[in-house]
Amino acid sequence: MSENDDFSLLMDTKRLETLVDGIFAIAMTLLVLGLAVPQIAPPVTEATLQAAILGIVPNLISMVVSFVLLAVFWKIHHKIFKRIKYMNGTLLWINVIWLLFIVLVPFSASLTGDYGNLYTSHLIFNLNMLGISTLLFLNWHYANKTNLIHEKVGKKYIDVTWRVNAGYIIVVLAAMVLTFIIPQFSSIVYLITIPMEYIVKSISGV
Amino acid sequence: MSENDDFSLLMDTKRLETLVDGIFAIAMTLLVLGLAVPQIAPPVTEATLQAAILGIVPNLISMVVSFVLLAVFWKIHHKIFKRIKYMNGTLLWINVIWLLFIVLVPFSASLTGDYGNLYTSHLIFNLNMLGISTLLFLNWHYANKTNLIHEKVGKKYIDVTWRVNAGYIIVVLAAMVLTFIIPQFSSIVYLITIPMEYIVKSISGV
Amino acid sequence: MSENDDFSLLMDTKRLETLVDGIFAIAMTLLVLGLAVPQIAPPVTEATLQAAILGIVPNLISMVVSFVLLAVFWKIHHKIFKRIKYMNGTLLWINVIWLLFIVLVPFSASLTGDYGNLYTSHLIFNLNMLGISTLLFLNWHYANKTNLIHEKVGKKYIDVTWRVNAGYIIVVLAAMVLTFIIPQFSSIVYLITIPMEYIVKSISGV
Amino acid sequence: MSENDDFSLLMDTKRLETLVDGIFAIAMTLLVLGLAVPQIAPPVTEATLQAAILGIVPNLISMVVSFVLLAVFWKIHHKIFKRIKYMNGTLLWINVIWLLFIVLVPFSASLTGDYGNLYTSHLIFNLNMLGISTLLFLNWHYANKTNLIHEKVGKKYIDVTWRVNAGYIIVVLAAMVLTFIIPQFSSIVYLITIPMEYIVKSISGV
Repeated sequence: MSENDDFSLLMDTKRLETLVDGIFAIAMTLLVLGLAVPQIAPPVTEATLQAAILGIVPNLISMVVSFVLLAVFWKIHHKIFKRIKYMNGTLLWINVIWLLFIVLVPFSASLTGDYGNLYTSHLIFNLNMLGISTLLFLNWHYANKTNLIHEKVGKKYIDVTWRVNAGYIIVVLAAMVLTFIIPQFSSIVYLITIPMEYIVKSISGV
Repeated sequence: MSENDDFSLLMDTKRLETLVDGIFAIAMTLLVLGLAVPQIAPPVTEATLQAAILGIVPNLISMVVSFVLLAVFWKIHHKIFKRIKYMNGTLLWINVIWLLFIVLVPFSASLTGDYGNLYTSHLIFNLNMLGISTLLFLNWHYANKTNLIHEKVGKKYIDVTWRVNAGYIIVVLAAMVLTFIIPQFSSIVYLITIPMEYIVKSISGV
Repeated sequence: MSENDDFSLLMDTKRLETLVDGIFAIAMTLLVLGLAVPQIAPPVTEATLQAAILGIVPNLISMVVSFVLLAVFWKIHHKIFKRIKYMNGTLLWINVIWLLFIVLVPFSASLTGDYGNLYTSHLIFNLNMLGISTLLFLNWHYANKTNLIHEKVGKKYIDVTWRVNAGYIIVVLAAMVLTFIIPQFSSIVYLITIPMEYIVKSISGV
Repeated sequence: MSENDDFSLLMDTKRLETLVDGIFAIAMTLLVLGLAVPQIAPPVTEATLQAAILGIVPNLISMVVSFVLLAVFWKIHHKIFKRIKYMNGTLLWINVIWLLFIVLVPFSASLTGDYGNLYTSHLIFNLNMLGISTLLFLNWHYANKTNLIHEKVGKKYIDVTWRVNAGYIIVVLAAMVLTFIIPQFSSIVYLITIPMEYIVKSISGV
């Protein structure tokens, strides 16, 4: 209760982390709403049901990719916030806008599920991912610049994390280029986000 | 376990805060359901998809405004409850009704997204915001009047918070007036809620 | 880690409480999905939108009643579990089935919202509430019978809580009878659940 | 803050448990969306509403079975993670994929609710359950093999848990075989998951 009369702009980070966990859990679960149970015109047979289910396989793939990407971003955000001492208003708003892009994922995932043969849908999905990765990068960059990172975190750790976050942006940009070449398979490039941390650590020699 | 046999009406606040965090995380994420993936009549081309997506831009704007407003209210509620020692039944019910208005936001946001050219939709959105800001004000006012605020919180802090909460009500009333003049742009006035705390603090000289 | 090799059936209650908080937050927020934004056939005017919104007022009332009832049940469950030391498998399953009835509330609330002029919808809503109140009663009754209540909780407290829980069942049964007399207003009787605790305490003279 | 400069791959498990609790609470509550309020063509009478509600009884049964199964898997996952000291990247990804199958349950439950007379729907539901039970088994097996289980957990406990997890896989396989014989009643076999732990413990003589 030491800060009862505190008018300063510094806040502790625990509350934000609770909101982040809640929003990720919900966004990851809402992805399933992109998988509408097919409404089949009678007569309904095993064959028509199987055909209808095969018809939503693109939605399933889109959902799986988005689920994995959200898990990757959730994990890296947690790792970052374990090392941030406290927040100011700017850092809070960087994270609120970041969460806004997270919340948009079920929408853009549904879009690529429904219209995966058109590059417009992939462009929107990739713009969504660009928002997420850019704000994640800004988050760490700003926290470092304004001394909000815990003093025990070493310079090497800060640098490697900076590169990991930059790496996500590069992956998104690569996916964007691929969208115009092979729209339906451009999301494959996102698989590299899974081992990203280990790749960057290896290159950095830690 | 000191209060096992306690028939008093005082409750600790931690449980309510967990419910508040959960409801905010869900309401903020449910906003995305206001962004239905457009169902396009064939033939589906890049051009028709792009046109359909442009058609939901008003829903996106409505969603972003609501998301930011919910983040503002979530933050101020947390700050307030950090300074409230315990609750009685009345304070609990003020907060339950407040949460009811929070839960209504995805509905009224969808309404302005779909019918943003009509002042009726903005009126309902603004009535929703009026409920939220009035109950937030009542919450602090009642807690102060009935000595539920922690004794270490200074009079100056109580006054400034009182003014910040009154400020939100004034912003909503301003938005209501603007609804009848420029319905489609009335929500712009809500942007002032973001720096509200800092403005009030500056005016109050703290 | 004292129970690492423990094959006993006793569990601590904290995990269940986290699940309960999560499910209540979501069920209370999902109630808003019962308020579908009206799809109006063109021409859309202020008058047709206002008429369409008036048309969902029954859904709003149904939603508000359900929201308040869920808040009442959430509060009483928390108070009860603060006094329960640990769980066995039976108590866990009483609570899982209780949560199943909680999860059904958004469905039965939508039903009374859409078909409030028919007693069938109210009967289903009331059966849902009967399930909730009966299992809440069973929960405390069983915990008491099998000595799972904390030993510091006095006999008087146990008795009063027993009566409060029985009171909820009586209210539901009263609503059920009213359904056949005044279907559209039968839910009014539920308002008595809000001061129920205080009424029972007053009658019991504590 | 001892691991601030830690580039090792070991993580603590608490964060994952929060995500798991959130996702289970949401998936269990989203099951209710499989119970769409019937849209009845006028004239709407008590008889047509009752007929429409009887028409969604298969969806209700499907929802109840899925709710109970999710509760069983939630409980066993918690018991397991109480005994796991920390995670590495592989264990995290086993759990992320496990959560992906959890999130799919509202979809496959809706499918069996809508098309319960066709074995295709049950096959998909059972494949979903096979994914859940296999990854749960892998989780414990891998944690044991790589010494991530707390050292105080005895060999007997590890063996019994291994058998319980194998038991779930056997139940799913039994349900799959039954699907081809009695599709509409194959899910009854899942009721055995409720006392599974106690059965395996009895057979193992602990």
